[in-house]
Amino acid sequence: MGAERAADQAVGVVAAEAARELDRAVVVAGDEVSDPLRAALTEALGRPVTRGPASADAPVIRVGARRPAFTEGGERVVWFHSVNAGVDALLKGGADQRAWPADVLLTRTVGRMGDRMAQYVLGWALSECQRVPDFLAAHDRADWSRRDTELAAGQLALVYGAGRIGSRVAHYLRGAGIRVVEAGRATVPDADALLPDARWVVDVLPLTSATRGFFGPRRLDAMRGATFLNIGRGATVDLAALEAALSSGAVRSAVLDVLPDEPATPDHPVWHLPRTTVTSHTSGPTTDEDVVTDLLSCWRTLRTGQTPALAVPTGRGY
Amino acid sequence: MGAERAADQAVGVVAAEAARELDRAVVVAGDEVSDPLRAALTEALGRPVTRGPASADAPVIRVGARRPAFTEGGERVVWFHSVNAGVDALLKGGADQRAWPADVLLTRTVGRMGDRMAQYVLGWALSECQRVPDFLAAHDRADWSRRDTELAAGQLALVYGAGRIGSRVAHYLRGAGIRVVEAGRATVPDADALLPDARWVVDVLPLTSATRGFFGPRRLDAMRGATFLNIGRGATVDLAALEAALSSGAVRSAVLDVLPDEPATPDHPVWHLPRTTVTSHTSGPTTDEDVVTDLLSCWRTLRTGQTPALAVPTGRGY
Repeated sequence: MGAERAADQAVGVVAAEAARELDRAVVVAGDEVSDPLRAALTEALGRPVTRGPASADAPVIRVGARRPAFTEGGERVVWFHSVNAGVDALLKGGADQRAWPADVLLTRTVGRMGDRMAQYVLGWALSECQRVPDFLAAHDRADWSRRDTELAAGQLALVYGAGRIGSRVAHYLRGAGIRVVEAGRATVPDADALLPDARWVVDVLPLTSATRGFFGPRRLDAMRGATFLNIGRGATVDLAALEAALSSGAVRSAVLDVLPDEPATPDHPVWHLPRTTVTSHTSGPTTDEDVVTDLLSCWRTLRTGQTPALAVPTGRGY
Repeated sequence: MGAERAADQAVGVVAAEAARELDRAVVVAGDEVSDPLRAALTEALGRPVTRGPASADAPVIRVGARRPAFTEGGERVVWFHSVNAGVDALLKGGADQRAWPADVLLTRTVGRMGDRMAQYVLGWALSECQRVPDFLAAHDRADWSRRDTELAAGQLALVYGAGRIGSRVAHYLRGAGIRVVEAGRATVPDADALLPDARWVVDVLPLTSATRGFFGPRRLDAMRGATFLNIGRGATVDLAALEAALSSGAVRSAVLDVLPDEPATPDHPVWHLPRTTVTSHTSGPTTDEDVVTDLLSCWRTLRTGQTPALAVPTGRGY
């Protein structure tokens, strides 16, 4: 845990350094940022947001989705604001496969993503309880037959991943009367012990060396009819183990918003998993409005000399 | 309002009369009550629950779904416990078309029906926001394409019908971050003024002379893209007006658990309403466990000399 505390301290130092450069800095939007978003950022910040590259002298604040080259003698990036919430591709990415530079502040856009992802989980969970797919099919057949539905309230959900998104998932599930146990790093064993009792298991894990294949045979086979929902990262799930657990019935059904390799091609075997629905990494969209709001919030926090809550402790690897 | 207060007082009087007969009374289950339920009631009450008819002398407590004949010189029914929550068929029913006898206590089973119906509403509302039908169809085509979803939190729902079920609907919708305005009899005009702003309009109305065709052209055409859900009574909706409002777009979509005439035959035009899903009056099932729990609760309340909360003020007509 010492390494984590060090990472948290390091982000404070790099945030303070970025804060000192705010007035002089040039703000550059990556090619992947749309013109309307660039215009909105220009207006919100009250200074031009250019397409770059900036001159080698000025400190640079970059906004985008793709990792800059960080080449020697190139732009001096002091702050990178991600338009997305997930930053593992930024941290791991780059042709050089090097760690994120220790002197570059990394912040991210969360927006209302937590609410959106939480409602995705609640919506899919309730839709199964209410047998929405069966009723839609019956409607198409003009078939008025009674179907038993299931009361979600009172049943148990395990939410793996206790960050801001996981806590919003827990919040909305509780709002529907569902009992929720949240599993953070320290409490994973407690949650694992409840796998046989869970009606839902929700994966909101970031991808790190510790979470790759986290839902493998041991955890999936421990379930007794849970519905498994993944809104975290695809590679936290061992798809072969999931298929086995679906076949045995240990896992009742699965809703996968993320996959180890995306997008799924039409011949991808995941489309043929039993009782599974794959959605297209759409559970937590960030809108242009979210990017503007969150960048501006980081900017103002830096001005007050504080570390933005959206700053990523890059040393932790997620 | 004077008539309503009188009805509320009358139920207290008839409850007190039934309470005095509890020890002597014979408990009779209607033919529509299953054997397992009759056995469960016998065990819970600690006295035999027979199939009747009882002798003309003993006071009778009836449990069932169908209105007794109430013939002169027949059984002396002092209390009827409905295994269902909806009692309009009991109140209006009977070949004689007479009002419910003023000297017979009527109680009903609500069970967890409020929770169940509320989760039906929330489930179908979120399923539309999450585009569950579209994603299911896309999955069948092995089609990974991004689809925008909609955040329910922060949007407005109007819930017409402010009884126990309506208040559970409001509770669960609020749990999902939805703003809710509940419309009871006195506040209908306030809710009506909000129809253009509503994302959802939920009908939880009982059927009375005042609510027949309540959702007709005036209210339906006032909507601006609301989804309309009916879990109240089918005849509170004018289906021709609903079809027109769906065609014009005033109503975005409809989810109908109840119809004026049920069950819907395969050639019923309701199956062809645009953007509509019909479910088979299954939003609020009552289980055998619910019947036992609620009858026992009424019994115990009568013993304490109070009026059960599940007693129906029959003079109100709902």
